[in-house]
Amino acid sequence: MMKQARTLLSRSLCDQSKSLFEGNFKVSPLRGFATRADSSTSARGFSGKDAAKPSGRVFAPYAIFKGKAALSVEPVLPTFARIEPGNLRIDRRGSVMMTFMPASGERKYDWEKKQLFALSATEVGSLISMGSNDSSEFFHDPSMKSSNAGQVRKSLSIKPHADGSGYFISLTVNNSILKTNERIVVPVTTAEFVVMKTAFSFALPHIMGWDRILGQADTAAQGITLHPKTDLPQLGVEWV
Amino acid sequence: MMKQARTLLSRSLCDQSKSLFEGNFKVSPLRGFATRADSSTSARGFSGKDAAKPSGRVFAPYAIFKGKAALSVEPVLPTFARIEPGNLRIDRRGSVMMTFMPASGERKYDWEKKQLFALSATEVGSLISMGSNDSSEFFHDPSMKSSNAGQVRKSLSIKPHADGSGYFISLTVNNSILKTNERIVVPVTTAEFVVMKTAFSFALPHIMGWDRILGQADTAAQGITLHPKTDLPQLGVEWV
Amino acid sequence: MMKQARTLLSRSLCDQSKSLFEGNFKVSPLRGFATRADSSTSARGFSGKDAAKPSGRVFAPYAIFKGKAALSVEPVLPTFARIEPGNLRIDRRGSVMMTFMPASGERKYDWEKKQLFALSATEVGSLISMGSNDSSEFFHDPSMKSSNAGQVRKSLSIKPHADGSGYFISLTVNNSILKTNERIVVPVTTAEFVVMKTAFSFALPHIMGWDRILGQADTAAQGITLHPKTDLPQLGVEWV
Amino acid sequence: MMKQARTLLSRSLCDQSKSLFEGNFKVSPLRGFATRADSSTSARGFSGKDAAKPSGRVFAPYAIFKGKAALSVEPVLPTFARIEPGNLRIDRRGSVMMTFMPASGERKYDWEKKQLFALSATEVGSLISMGSNDSSEFFHDPSMKSSNAGQVRKSLSIKPHADGSGYFISLTVNNSILKTNERIVVPVTTAEFVVMKTAFSFALPHIMGWDRILGQADTAAQGITLHPKTDLPQLGVEWV
Repeated sequence: MMKQARTLLSRSLCDQSKSLFEGNFKVSPLRGFATRADSSTSARGFSGKDAAKPSGRVFAPYAIFKGKAALSVEPVLPTFARIEPGNLRIDRRGSVMMTFMPASGERKYDWEKKQLFALSATEVGSLISMGSNDSSEFFHDPSMKSSNAGQVRKSLSIKPHADGSGYFISLTVNNSILKTNERIVVPVTTAEFVVMKTAFSFALPHIMGWDRILGQADTAAQGITLHPKTDLPQLGVEWV
Repeated sequence: MMKQARTLLSRSLCDQSKSLFEGNFKVSPLRGFATRADSSTSARGFSGKDAAKPSGRVFAPYAIFKGKAALSVEPVLPTFARIEPGNLRIDRRGSVMMTFMPASGERKYDWEKKQLFALSATEVGSLISMGSNDSSEFFHDPSMKSSNAGQVRKSLSIKPHADGSGYFISLTVNNSILKTNERIVVPVTTAEFVVMKTAFSFALPHIMGWDRILGQADTAAQGITLHPKTDLPQLGVEWV
Repeated sequence: MMKQARTLLSRSLCDQSKSLFEGNFKVSPLRGFATRADSSTSARGFSGKDAAKPSGRVFAPYAIFKGKAALSVEPVLPTFARIEPGNLRIDRRGSVMMTFMPASGERKYDWEKKQLFALSATEVGSLISMGSNDSSEFFHDPSMKSSNAGQVRKSLSIKPHADGSGYFISLTVNNSILKTNERIVVPVTTAEFVVMKTAFSFALPHIMGWDRILGQADTAAQGITLHPKTDLPQLGVEWV
Repeated sequence: MMKQARTLLSRSLCDQSKSLFEGNFKVSPLRGFATRADSSTSARGFSGKDAAKPSGRVFAPYAIFKGKAALSVEPVLPTFARIEPGNLRIDRRGSVMMTFMPASGERKYDWEKKQLFALSATEVGSLISMGSNDSSEFFHDPSMKSSNAGQVRKSLSIKPHADGSGYFISLTVNNSILKTNERIVVPVTTAEFVVMKTAFSFALPHIMGWDRILGQADTAAQGITLHPKTDLPQLGVEWV
């Protein structure tokens, strides 16, 4: 009965999330997820004149709505720079963006108070290798190496429930200028954490850009003349 | 000998499944898998005038035929809505559809009495993290939040065999209007469950829509002009 | 020293394998891998008049060459049948083809005496879930349900080394007409078995045809008009 | 505090790595990564007249920068040879290329002293199956089977930290002609090793060429007429 109630609640929240996310794209750029969309846009290098073109972006966050807060996770692709005609080099690594939102009432979440944390490839590696009793903690400074370094400090903490039924994921943001210290905690079940681990494992080679390296094969087969057997060097990569 | 017998039986059923599935697509829309096809169609948003066009759908269920019932599983893709020219937002999440069919005789199954259960991403996460001694139970109300809510209650239960050789997967459907209570149980071997877990893990990022986010790279490389190095913002996604 | 020797030997054999595989495609259809190529061809439904066309096939077996025998594994794609204009249904499931070849001398293998065993999806599931102390055994009858049923019996056995350093993989083929009983054994290291498990796990959704179901998303985004929000059915797949 | 310091350091190095990799592509062909780029080029069979064409290569190494040395890993695709019109056979297997670079000062690395080691598919299988207390060692002779065989001996060693917090990865290169014996050691954390294992597992089927075999399905569905049901052979691959 308890279980059923929880499932039904979770479904309600899930349903609600649809309208919440819709709102996300209707609100003015000054509100809500718009900041994320903006940073995502700039990260992909769309300049002003590109703004009117179709950008081909896809939004499919995995969202977990709980009583006091919600957590939404979504991969962010790396960007590439052309280094020679036809060649690409990874320029900015991808990440898994985590968005925390405090609740503002029953099944309502305050997008203006959301906080972001972008997991790097290595932090993703740390998360997906966590056992059911393991903890993790990551520290970021969004203004690192700028004149504002040290003003804002973010800490993401993942701690197991005492009974092994899941984890508490919490983000603490300390702003030394505004003298604020915010903390948003979202409890996640083992099943939700497994979804995250499986999806993050799937995303990892993509945020590293390895899918691009390894996807070249298909292109090669269509466009590039393969070397005849007689051209083979005697010693190749395999012997290094 | 026992083992061989089982394998041969399994092959017979597997062979039979081919003709069973064929039947599936020949019967009238009022029968059998047709309901699934219908719901799948509507879920993908094909309207009347689209019905005559090739729909490009692929049917490849993984079916387990046992003495008293059969279980067939198959992923269902999410749907996307256009939110701006060229952008897509996930609209309805995908799922893994489980179809249970009671046997109506030796190696015959009654499609009219089939029962469906669509696993959400989180329920898939729960299933793929099950150890050999773990149990799971999920509850659905197909009419939730409509005026018919509570009339039908479905419960999917996965329980390990006592000797660790597999699981019993059972679906109970309770209809309070018709005052019926149906239960279909399919025993699955460890090997069959591993196939399900591996295939579900593969499917999970796709039913979440993350393959669409992460597949954008290929498109981007062909069509979008990558930003020159000088356009790079000083602080990007990685520093959030 | 031992270890180095083994690595160097393995490299020699690996190098040799290249020429062995080359031979495979130069020999007459009556010899060697040609049989496999033939069955593969027919399994993909190429008829006589297709034979002259480019078939677009790719050969990339993973081969393990040992002192007394060699084992080569390679995935075989499923075939699909058109069931309506534009729709596809899986017709014949894919498999992982295992080819065993006895040694005919030092670093030479006798292709004419090769034996084949095609692992089904469920058998692949069984193999990839094997722990370091587990055994597996599978039985096939290549002529099952024909008038020749029972004439040939194949048994594939996977047994762990006593010291946990790998497995013995052996294929026994018993022909009751020819009154022959052949047995080919290939010892594989843990690393080689992990390659097989990883590659088989990768292949599994493909031999089941699920990559085709889940790959539809890309096509859909390009060609199919997505439903406007107002057309959404009140109850969709997710609520089943 | 310790942890934060480490994270910030790691971020600095990561940031530095960007400029380091940039340098990589600006230096003359006689320096740094250029050697790798060259070998990669020849491995893909680009002949002289192809050199001016866009090659479509993508560079996305995963780099780990530590105090005394750095390690960069990147997959290398297999090459294919045409064996009949339209068919491809794997010609040279892919690998995971490991590049070790000693530090030449604080946060500076000496590209001219880099050493390469290309992991084969089986060596990748060995690495990805390592538990937290396991060790591995691989031996290569880059000039094997040439007249220079035995002159250079490379040994890659992976040893766990005593406290289980990661591994030491070291490459020893012994040159009997130059009478040199170089050794570069990079400590990697558990999280970094998990990134490597996850990315290597993703890469493995690609360096084996299995993605090419299994990616044929998409092509087949578009271009090849599927066999009608009546053409089915009585006994197919599945029954082998």
